[in-house]
Amino acid sequence: LADRLAHIPPTVFSEMSALALRTGAINLGQGFPDVDGPPSVIAAAEAALEAGANQYAPGIGVPALRAAIARHQQRHYGLDVDPDREVVVTTGCTEAVAAALLGLVDPGDEVVVLEPYYDSYVAMLDMCGAVRRPATLRAPDFRLDLDRLRAAVTDRTRAILLNTPHNPTGTVLTREELQVVADLAIEHDVIVVTDEVYEHLVFDGRAHVPIATLPGMWERTLTLSSAGKSYSFTGWKVGWATGPAPLVQAVLAAKQWLTFTSGSPLQPAVAHALDHEPDWPRELARDLQARRDLLCDGLTAAGLSPRVPEGTYFATTDVSHLGWADGRELCLALPERAGVVAIPTQGFYDDAEAGRQLVRWAFCKQPDVISEGVRRLAAAD
Amino acid sequence: LADRLAHIPPTVFSEMSALALRTGAINLGQGFPDVDGPPSVIAAAEAALEAGANQYAPGIGVPALRAAIARHQQRHYGLDVDPDREVVVTTGCTEAVAAALLGLVDPGDEVVVLEPYYDSYVAMLDMCGAVRRPATLRAPDFRLDLDRLRAAVTDRTRAILLNTPHNPTGTVLTREELQVVADLAIEHDVIVVTDEVYEHLVFDGRAHVPIATLPGMWERTLTLSSAGKSYSFTGWKVGWATGPAPLVQAVLAAKQWLTFTSGSPLQPAVAHALDHEPDWPRELARDLQARRDLLCDGLTAAGLSPRVPEGTYFATTDVSHLGWADGRELCLALPERAGVVAIPTQGFYDDAEAGRQLVRWAFCKQPDVISEGVRRLAAAD
Ligand SMILES: CSCCC(=O)C(=O)O
Ligand SMILES: CSCCC(=O)C(=O)O
Repeated sequence: LADRLAHIPPTVFSEMSALALRTGAINLGQGFPDVDGPPSVIAAAEAALEAGANQYAPGIGVPALRAAIARHQQRHYGLDVDPDREVVVTTGCTEAVAAALLGLVDPGDEVVVLEPYYDSYVAMLDMCGAVRRPATLRAPDFRLDLDRLRAAVTDRTRAILLNTPHNPTGTVLTREELQVVADLAIEHDVIVVTDEVYEHLVFDGRAHVPIATLPGMWERTLTLSSAGKSYSFTGWKVGWATGPAPLVQAVLAAKQWLTFTSGSPLQPAVAHALDHEPDWPRELARDLQARRDLLCDGLTAAGLSPRVPEGTYFATTDVSHLGWADGRELCLALPERAGVVAIPTQGFYDDAEAGRQLVRWAFCKQPDVISEGVRRLAAAD
Repeated sequence: LADRLAHIPPTVFSEMSALALRTGAINLGQGFPDVDGPPSVIAAAEAALEAGANQYAPGIGVPALRAAIARHQQRHYGLDVDPDREVVVTTGCTEAVAAALLGLVDPGDEVVVLEPYYDSYVAMLDMCGAVRRPATLRAPDFRLDLDRLRAAVTDRTRAILLNTPHNPTGTVLTREELQVVADLAIEHDVIVVTDEVYEHLVFDGRAHVPIATLPGMWERTLTLSSAGKSYSFTGWKVGWATGPAPLVQAVLAAKQWLTFTSGSPLQPAVAHALDHEPDWPRELARDLQARRDLLCDGLTAAGLSPRVPEGTYFATTDVSHLGWADGRELCLALPERAGVVAIPTQGFYDDAEAGRQLVRWAFCKQPDVISEGVRRLAAAD
């Protein structure tokens, strides 16, 4: 194994999904829905397969999808995006993150990241030789520590890597919080790379605010998203980056060597989704909100006190309330004790102590699955 | 743009396909067929979409595909591959190359590579900080220079990066040539990473020999391939790496951060192809051989003397026979002069002079497209 990977543990999502498969436990770990997205989008993929969309798509993405992404940004956020120069299609948001960091961050560059960190951010920043500077979302309410953020951004900062709605905490950054980030980015002439893959999955009437919409931010922001979460096709891995041409070019410069292109017959289907199922993600969010409440009520009944998430698929709990000091130990024991799988998030903190007792539960599952999961938890000893 | 990419030009395949699109020229550049693969495989993809294969596949690949890949290696090459530990599915062979190099090659490691190099090898070796040592396939017959190879492999060598059948030259390495590579790899305790994506596309009764089948080589060889070329679905980007568990683990260790997974509904369809259309690639090769001859005869009639390729989709010519000293200049002029696009391969040589006059032509196109292409060439001034 090359040195660049030697000290990076395998992704906890694969580890825990494999555990669920092996034990037959209910998988409230990795974030994928158990009901697929719109039938019309499946039909569009079938039509693309039949129509011969089976050879290499352009590395930048098929024109129909790039145009649909630009229209999506216009419709939802009033952003004016040139589909030929300011959009690149990627193999899910994961590749967009990898290519953005490989394309923009040099060894020794400092990158400010929201902590707890989604694990691919840490791995890719390590691979880039970047110096990670955490800006922590502090338990129990997981709001951004603005003082810590201000101290973290300096003239050595190359980029701020945001994620809103935030995985794993479920925090949705407010316009006021984002304005602080924007002010810092402008003051220190820093790029913002923002993973907004849960952009449509916000609850209780909240609005997702893309930081690219704040004054002066478009020209320094690379916004990443995907069809996976918005349209419940997590396995299709059709994602994208939008932003000013030089930043999009940097993504393309790296991505062309990682996969070159992908998902030719799926790209037109995602274009169909964005253009012809514009309200589907909002309905999904409405539906998810009820499932969030079902999960949170059940977790509370089982003796856990979840922080009720503002967005995403995920609720986080402090398992010390159940008498477990270590969330990872609980998660490894849970399949046998309760027939349930969840995600320990201690690995997403620089100081594992800080998140030692935290466990994340997914609610992108059918109501009866969630009910059965929390019933098992309550019944376990 | 990060330093690691600053001196790497964009892939010539995208450049030339964009030129074909812009000018409406016949695209004999990038290697993708103009007829899709087996209808039963399309039907299998549709069935997978309907059956709900739409959420994250395991990072290592869906079990049915890994099993089918193992059976394929057994059936064609007598290799005994454990589908659970010795196979990983990737986003095409491009991601397999990227992940293998990121997973195995440290900065300063020497890697011996066949020259002319496919461009992603160079880019990824650069990104890894590797030192490239060429082993040249010399025009006009493009056989491997075995003395140069012997001199290139030393105790500083980490890996030999092979490609057979070889893109762009069309050379198929013989068992004897591969034995020399194997002897060197064993003597110097070196890994072999071998891109065998054209494994089934060999002509004139030749056999493709995977270097992993030579004595003592399985345990040090990572073999990369893909469904794209074998089954004419280049846009699906379903590839794989097979080899001993530690090498496969290294690919997975990098790949999990590049894309995590991809192509959930396409993976079962490729399993169907491998299991239920085992003879299709051989029939494609038979058919391609006739198209190779059509192209080569036409190129000869147009005043070029192609080296008749032993495998792949591609024939290479020396355009100085047409009075052009520089193949890239010819390729940039060709759409307007002749309505044809081809690939200059000078960028695949360390010393651009060595390949300055070389141009590659693809014959994975329908006979009438090839005929019209060479007719235009002959008619051009
Ligand atoms: C690699 S899993 C992708 C993200 C997600 O779904 C999760 O955080 O569980
Ligand atoms: C990125 S193009 C993939 C390889 C190929 O088809 C070519 O060499 O033309």
